[in-house]
Amino acid sequence: MNTIGHLINGEQVNREGDRHQDIANPSTNEVSARVCLASRATVDEAIAAAQAAYPAWRNTPPIKRARLMFRLKDLLEENAEKICELITREHGKVFNDAMGELRRGIENVEYACSIPELLKGEHSKNVGPAIDSWSEFQPLGVCAGITPFNFPAMVPLWMWPMAVACGNTFVLKPSERDPSSALFIAQLGLEAGIPAGVLNVVNGDKEAVDTLLTDSRVQAVSFVGSTPIAEYVYTTGNANGKRVQAFGGAKNHAVVMPDADLDNAVNALMGAAYGSCGERCMAISVAVAVGDATADTLIEKLKEQIAKLKVGDGMDNGNDMGPLVTRAHKKKVEGYIAKGLEEGAELVVDGRGLTVPGFESGNYLGACLFDKVTPEMTIHSDEIFGPVLCVMRAKTMQEAMDIVDAHEYGNGTCIFTRDGEAARYFSDNIKVGMVGINVPLPVPVAYHSFGGWKRSLFGDLHAYGPDSVRFYTKRKSVTQRWPASGVREGVQFTFPSNG
Amino acid sequence: MNTIGHLINGEQVNREGDRHQDIANPSTNEVSARVCLASRATVDEAIAAAQAAYPAWRNTPPIKRARLMFRLKDLLEENAEKICELITREHGKVFNDAMGELRRGIENVEYACSIPELLKGEHSKNVGPAIDSWSEFQPLGVCAGITPFNFPAMVPLWMWPMAVACGNTFVLKPSERDPSSALFIAQLGLEAGIPAGVLNVVNGDKEAVDTLLTDSRVQAVSFVGSTPIAEYVYTTGNANGKRVQAFGGAKNHAVVMPDADLDNAVNALMGAAYGSCGERCMAISVAVAVGDATADTLIEKLKEQIAKLKVGDGMDNGNDMGPLVTRAHKKKVEGYIAKGLEEGAELVVDGRGLTVPGFESGNYLGACLFDKVTPEMTIHSDEIFGPVLCVMRAKTMQEAMDIVDAHEYGNGTCIFTRDGEAARYFSDNIKVGMVGINVPLPVPVAYHSFGGWKRSLFGDLHAYGPDSVRFYTKRKSVTQRWPASGVREGVQFTFPSNG
Amino acid sequence: MNTIGHLINGEQVNREGDRHQDIANPSTNEVSARVCLASRATVDEAIAAAQAAYPAWRNTPPIKRARLMFRLKDLLEENAEKICELITREHGKVFNDAMGELRRGIENVEYACSIPELLKGEHSKNVGPAIDSWSEFQPLGVCAGITPFNFPAMVPLWMWPMAVACGNTFVLKPSERDPSSALFIAQLGLEAGIPAGVLNVVNGDKEAVDTLLTDSRVQAVSFVGSTPIAEYVYTTGNANGKRVQAFGGAKNHAVVMPDADLDNAVNALMGAAYGSCGERCMAISVAVAVGDATADTLIEKLKEQIAKLKVGDGMDNGNDMGPLVTRAHKKKVEGYIAKGLEEGAELVVDGRGLTVPGFESGNYLGACLFDKVTPEMTIHSDEIFGPVLCVMRAKTMQEAMDIVDAHEYGNGTCIFTRDGEAARYFSDNIKVGMVGINVPLPVPVAYHSFGGWKRSLFGDLHAYGPDSVRFYTKRKSVTQRWPASGVREGVQFTFPSNG
Amino acid sequence: MNTIGHLINGEQVNREGDRHQDIANPSTNEVSARVCLASRATVDEAIAAAQAAYPAWRNTPPIKRARLMFRLKDLLEENAEKICELITREHGKVFNDAMGELRRGIENVEYACSIPELLKGEHSKNVGPAIDSWSEFQPLGVCAGITPFNFPAMVPLWMWPMAVACGNTFVLKPSERDPSSALFIAQLGLEAGIPAGVLNVVNGDKEAVDTLLTDSRVQAVSFVGSTPIAEYVYTTGNANGKRVQAFGGAKNHAVVMPDADLDNAVNALMGAAYGSCGERCMAISVAVAVGDATADTLIEKLKEQIAKLKVGDGMDNGNDMGPLVTRAHKKKVEGYIAKGLEEGAELVVDGRGLTVPGFESGNYLGACLFDKVTPEMTIHSDEIFGPVLCVMRAKTMQEAMDIVDAHEYGNGTCIFTRDGEAARYFSDNIKVGMVGINVPLPVPVAYHSFGGWKRSLFGDLHAYGPDSVRFYTKRKSVTQRWPASGVREGVQFTFPSNG
Repeated sequence: MNTIGHLINGEQVNREGDRHQDIANPSTNEVSARVCLASRATVDEAIAAAQAAYPAWRNTPPIKRARLMFRLKDLLEENAEKICELITREHGKVFNDAMGELRRGIENVEYACSIPELLKGEHSKNVGPAIDSWSEFQPLGVCAGITPFNFPAMVPLWMWPMAVACGNTFVLKPSERDPSSALFIAQLGLEAGIPAGVLNVVNGDKEAVDTLLTDSRVQAVSFVGSTPIAEYVYTTGNANGKRVQAFGGAKNHAVVMPDADLDNAVNALMGAAYGSCGERCMAISVAVAVGDATADTLIEKLKEQIAKLKVGDGMDNGNDMGPLVTRAHKKKVEGYIAKGLEEGAELVVDGRGLTVPGFESGNYLGACLFDKVTPEMTIHSDEIFGPVLCVMRAKTMQEAMDIVDAHEYGNGTCIFTRDGEAARYFSDNIKVGMVGINVPLPVPVAYHSFGGWKRSLFGDLHAYGPDSVRFYTKRKSVTQRWPASGVREGVQFTFPSNG
Repeated sequence: MNTIGHLINGEQVNREGDRHQDIANPSTNEVSARVCLASRATVDEAIAAAQAAYPAWRNTPPIKRARLMFRLKDLLEENAEKICELITREHGKVFNDAMGELRRGIENVEYACSIPELLKGEHSKNVGPAIDSWSEFQPLGVCAGITPFNFPAMVPLWMWPMAVACGNTFVLKPSERDPSSALFIAQLGLEAGIPAGVLNVVNGDKEAVDTLLTDSRVQAVSFVGSTPIAEYVYTTGNANGKRVQAFGGAKNHAVVMPDADLDNAVNALMGAAYGSCGERCMAISVAVAVGDATADTLIEKLKEQIAKLKVGDGMDNGNDMGPLVTRAHKKKVEGYIAKGLEEGAELVVDGRGLTVPGFESGNYLGACLFDKVTPEMTIHSDEIFGPVLCVMRAKTMQEAMDIVDAHEYGNGTCIFTRDGEAARYFSDNIKVGMVGINVPLPVPVAYHSFGGWKRSLFGDLHAYGPDSVRFYTKRKSVTQRWPASGVREGVQFTFPSNG
Repeated sequence: MNTIGHLINGEQVNREGDRHQDIANPSTNEVSARVCLASRATVDEAIAAAQAAYPAWRNTPPIKRARLMFRLKDLLEENAEKICELITREHGKVFNDAMGELRRGIENVEYACSIPELLKGEHSKNVGPAIDSWSEFQPLGVCAGITPFNFPAMVPLWMWPMAVACGNTFVLKPSERDPSSALFIAQLGLEAGIPAGVLNVVNGDKEAVDTLLTDSRVQAVSFVGSTPIAEYVYTTGNANGKRVQAFGGAKNHAVVMPDADLDNAVNALMGAAYGSCGERCMAISVAVAVGDATADTLIEKLKEQIAKLKVGDGMDNGNDMGPLVTRAHKKKVEGYIAKGLEEGAELVVDGRGLTVPGFESGNYLGACLFDKVTPEMTIHSDEIFGPVLCVMRAKTMQEAMDIVDAHEYGNGTCIFTRDGEAARYFSDNIKVGMVGINVPLPVPVAYHSFGGWKRSLFGDLHAYGPDSVRFYTKRKSVTQRWPASGVREGVQFTFPSNG
Repeated sequence: MNTIGHLINGEQVNREGDRHQDIANPSTNEVSARVCLASRATVDEAIAAAQAAYPAWRNTPPIKRARLMFRLKDLLEENAEKICELITREHGKVFNDAMGELRRGIENVEYACSIPELLKGEHSKNVGPAIDSWSEFQPLGVCAGITPFNFPAMVPLWMWPMAVACGNTFVLKPSERDPSSALFIAQLGLEAGIPAGVLNVVNGDKEAVDTLLTDSRVQAVSFVGSTPIAEYVYTTGNANGKRVQAFGGAKNHAVVMPDADLDNAVNALMGAAYGSCGERCMAISVAVAVGDATADTLIEKLKEQIAKLKVGDGMDNGNDMGPLVTRAHKKKVEGYIAKGLEEGAELVVDGRGLTVPGFESGNYLGACLFDKVTPEMTIHSDEIFGPVLCVMRAKTMQEAMDIVDAHEYGNGTCIFTRDGEAARYFSDNIKVGMVGINVPLPVPVAYHSFGGWKRSLFGDLHAYGPDSVRFYTKRKSVTQRWPASGVREGVQFTFPSNG
């Protein structure tokens, strides 16, 4: 059986002290490989490699670092099919959806190609008489990234290309559930010319995470995962003197106004709620309809669309949804559905009990639709991370907004309306970091930045885009004054006018 | 006796549950007033006032907020003498030096006047077909500032004018040692038109600090003080879900190269080492001479200059140095001098035992100069915060830089040289956040940002300047797409071509 | 009789060779003063003063230049009543409207206060190994401004405060029709601390303009006026090696959609069409109604509003409209009204023949409203610059946009609608530089920039705001590399390891 | 014989009405091809193609336009050898030098890859209550580029990739002397996916130029060439309503200070003076030595180096210099040498009369070195564009700077010194647009911008880098306010509280 090891100092390795864990295909639950779980010593080795590679990399001109990103983009495009197969086989999402994920990841590499522009500091002449001052954005040193199972290729690509382009070296710890695509992509990074040690990957679990969080050589940590772990990572990392940004959970509401184009909204919601089985931190998991008439029509149209959804193995692009990532996760989602019924929500469409012919052991669950969900229900307060859409009913737009604002998470939200004023009021006032106006998944493009508010993000700076340049560098301010009476005037004495 | 209370919701108040502490003039140790130490309930009241004032203030157009800053600048200039007298009477620094502090503080108000420019977000057309995206930098809500005794007027002005200009409301807790200037300035803020509740001041000690750090309504905390407290504030604030920037201690080295203009360097060092009795986080407390010849000359010239230093009451502008802030602090500094001798440093000039006629009870200490200080000595590892300059000797520039880089602090540093290459190598490689080239106190101007590296700063973003706009706002990303088939095409059907 | 001279090198002067012209109050046509028309020699003198003042001013740190702008803002606010009286007495506009003009002018001074921020260049470390590069935005030298009668205070304030804040010196030639407010404001500039020679004013006509356009010491010219003169200024200035921006005429259309809130739109149009008698380059002079129903209602509502308009002397704030600027201009506007009737437009409201009791000799003309105006009519193709609003009728939004796009001018335009999609399509595609969505006069605020498209602007860079910083400075790129083997390594040889 | 035609609307074409001109290899003067010289009709056709392609291209999202630039970069790198052979065969420069040129050109394509970042506008919330404003940088339409013989590949790559990335369509007219590389590169652009009509190339002479300058569909023209033509292009283009930037001649001085590392400076000067036979607008053609001692040593060392220079066919990378571009140009350069002698300069090294074995008919001229050149000599006032370095002698740095500042051109200059103060004084005060500190050819990198001062540039905005984004777009300001009482409040009435 295939063993998935680490990438340390330019070499694929596995080490004696590591433990191991099985990797299974979610569509069949057949074990395809085992992944090494790095011991503290193995992580130490990766950090040491990154530390050793730092001085030379830091001094490499940004344009040279950028050129490796240009090359990496090409390699990612050339190897897209292979990468997406790795994603689908380990994560379960439909191949086309994996392609979408990878495309978004590549966009971050494209953005990193502009690093010479992005690193420009501010230069001020004459802050005082003949005194100049400027700022430099210098790299931090060794940075680490800890990434989740749900976007195994994209989230690592949010982090290390920009970190490395900024002049840092990096240790990535991908999800131990589906590590292969991230590892393969890192290998392409080396092939693109990133020097050994500049980019390292360690597979692992809590032991690896804790090593990264406590080692004094690690200067910064980027994390994406659930809110409790995000908070742990943020607090622990900070207590150990690191810069940390930790992205946590979400519960994203779509507010549907009476004037919305409902066919349009329903199409948008279908993809946003059920795409990738709802295992996305930007998935829309709640639709808040303003007015009962709006809600009734919405439910009807959603039911019609759900009836047409195709669920099956992710390698078949004809399918709309694949399996959930693990059997345990499927059980957890089913538990939420039972809880929703118990607490009084109306299960309009029940996706439980689905069997996919030929994939009877897969972690399949059909699309579920709840109506009449209320704010205090567990299916509203918790992030389910499954194919479950909750419809809530509000009498007014303000009531809908109050529901959104009262939630502990504030990652993404959207509104469906034609009305300029409603859209502006919503986007101005809603306490959520990423807002869509008739856009169901308002994930910012790679040249803007990604980040939620409230307990969806611990840290000051958002992911990727301009903020990531700031996160992966520290400001240095230089103030300069040159004393007079040097060579300039000196020469006048040397060569007097009769010279 | 005068009681110094709080400024809450537009009113000067003191509350039953508060404790009190005496304020003494450092030049005489006479008690001039007592300051209230806010109870938890008093701080709660200030936070509640700030919270209530937030919604309306947030919606006030930035240009209107800016105009209050323009007015505040005028009021600060009109009241400069009064403010500086308050500073000198409570802190001890020479009046002219207080004027310099205030001037720096006003520069931050001037910068806040440009808030409409500084709040501009990024707008992208066509991130996809007919889809636009932009970023907004929205205020956080209630912010708090906790400030130190050594710049009682300036450091509060680093914080609240920009926080308030960004649309936040604010609770300031100044040093309980010298609170009057900050309180008076806040009162001027209200006079300038800042609405009641937008800006509040509470005086207090640890109880007040802990209330600010744990109250869930407080969104962000800016702190300046010693490193242990800075770390406590950072960790506690973060654990309570706040954005925190905490500025700590410093040990700032000047590297003096053999080609430096030594008269120039010595003049610069005198002010940088002994100005405000060395009670500045940007004071130069160590001079690292490269080469024994450089060191010997440096010592000679410093001795000459020290002999001319005038020490006395701060209200007399003829003096160069006033008293230390408290008797306890004077003792602490004297303890360091003794320790330095004990550990083998050479005390070239001994400022102990100084008596100022007419001010015999004041906390006076003359300028002290140590030679042959080595890295492991306590007088090198600790921040003394007194009029003590340590000279160290390095054989090479690299050795000098290694001394700087090995220190736990990384606030400021400077180099004296004429050589372009030495300056560039130094500023590029030194692990310090603020670097001067022939500039002894490289405090960035108000339109750049202030921040150290290593254990001199906990947090991602620097103080004042562009970074403070980022600190006092959070990014919101909006993505917008308008569905077709609206009024635009609709009209075409209403008025057909034969219309 | 009062003679209005020039401000040259800090002195109010008039010179022998100058000619003169009368200044009359438009409300009475009484002559109040005579203005000097500078000879070539007088203009030469002003340029020479500006040239002499340049070197020292250029080297003055930007923050010091900014502080004079802070002071100027205060002085303008303190003298607002006096300035506005000067405007109303010479231009005729209602006092309150003059206040609005001045307010807009002061906003440009406020923006100039942030010049240290605005002058920041870009700094790049390591454009090659140990090679750095940065940009500086250096002032140009002597700049000139030539400004129109219709905003005698505001347009000069668009120009010289930013030019001067950037480090240039300036010669202003205001309109000879209403020069007093600009001259008085310049005097306040000197009072604020602007050194003699840095800011000069010459009154004059074509002789003065031509001198400014051809003198080789003048580096740049900003002009606002009619399109034929703008084109002449641009071409002549360019041919004489100057940087020029020349703002010309306008014909600004409001497109009114069937879904617009018509009461709102009518209120907006009233002010935009008739405010300041339509003598504004951003006045709305055409309303394009989409659909006959929209047009009919619009006409009805406009008629009602026009009936309530109060026309009279500008010093009475109870009036909505004052007189036109000159008798000649009134004649010209009346000529257009006759031409409109002749070409077949329907004059719904005829403002001709109006007499204002007590001001029978004033240049008064009541509000006029044309319906059924078509694109080829002279009243549509020409800028009338009077209180004449033309209503046009379009069957579709596209037809309305085609009318706007076919016009030779492209200064401002607006749309009235509630529909997000219509607004976005309009603002994206319309070939006009300044676009309002439910905003009738989309004059950008001072921290954005003002400029039309097509034949409304000759030049690359817009007026005021960020563009004006660019216009009044030129880029310098510096690339720096320091040779090794200097003092840094040298010291190592001097002090070997056995030192 | 090969005929070099045009690239119009995606097709390589030649047209009946065109005239023709021979292309010869400068190393042999053998004719290798003939190039079409477009008639007015042919240029019209290209403009029409660009005009037709504009609407769709303008609406293509910037990220899609960027992706073609990524692809173009790859194609340029894959075809580098072929491109450089085309350059060397038609221009004469050494193959390695052509590679350097191409590399610089590709850097501009890399910069254009970041167009989504570069096109970001400024977004301001609440410029008034609930009023927002933002700026868009929209493309201009059809743009044209007219490029010189000396960088046949690079200068076109300065222009069209950014113009096209900004959403414009383009007509390029390369030098008719060496058009093949530009034509081939444009073909690669199409291969990269640029749609037919978006990028067109016409070969031609004055007839083509004049057509581009007068056709009303052309919105903007970028030109690089000699100063008289640049001025003609600027004036003519402006008079025809176009935006124009026109780069002209240069005379670039290196100031050599007594403290400079002379070996270093001499090495730098050799390449800067004689590389590409001096046929570069950034070539150093004058060295101003400060002090006779400096001058004497400089001359000695230059003589030594010149003796080692290898001159020969450009396809042999062992050579340092190839032939001049044409026989006529060689004659012109020889004329300047004779003139220099006649006017009293001292010809220290005479490169005339050189014969290269095997290439006896080539336009060869050896390196020439003049000493004791004075400001008024023709060899100092004129741009020679040949392998001729003039040494001048100044007594002081100020005198050296005065020589530079008095020259009509102000393209590039540099200083050789170790002294920080001398370097800062020079770069601050010298009246030249591009300044090197110990960098002989201070051509800014692609992410800064290129442009001279004085008569070296006509226009406000520099070439490539950030300025080029500004040049190839125009600002649109949008101000938006949404009327209240829409769907948001409406819903509240529809569903009252007892709903």
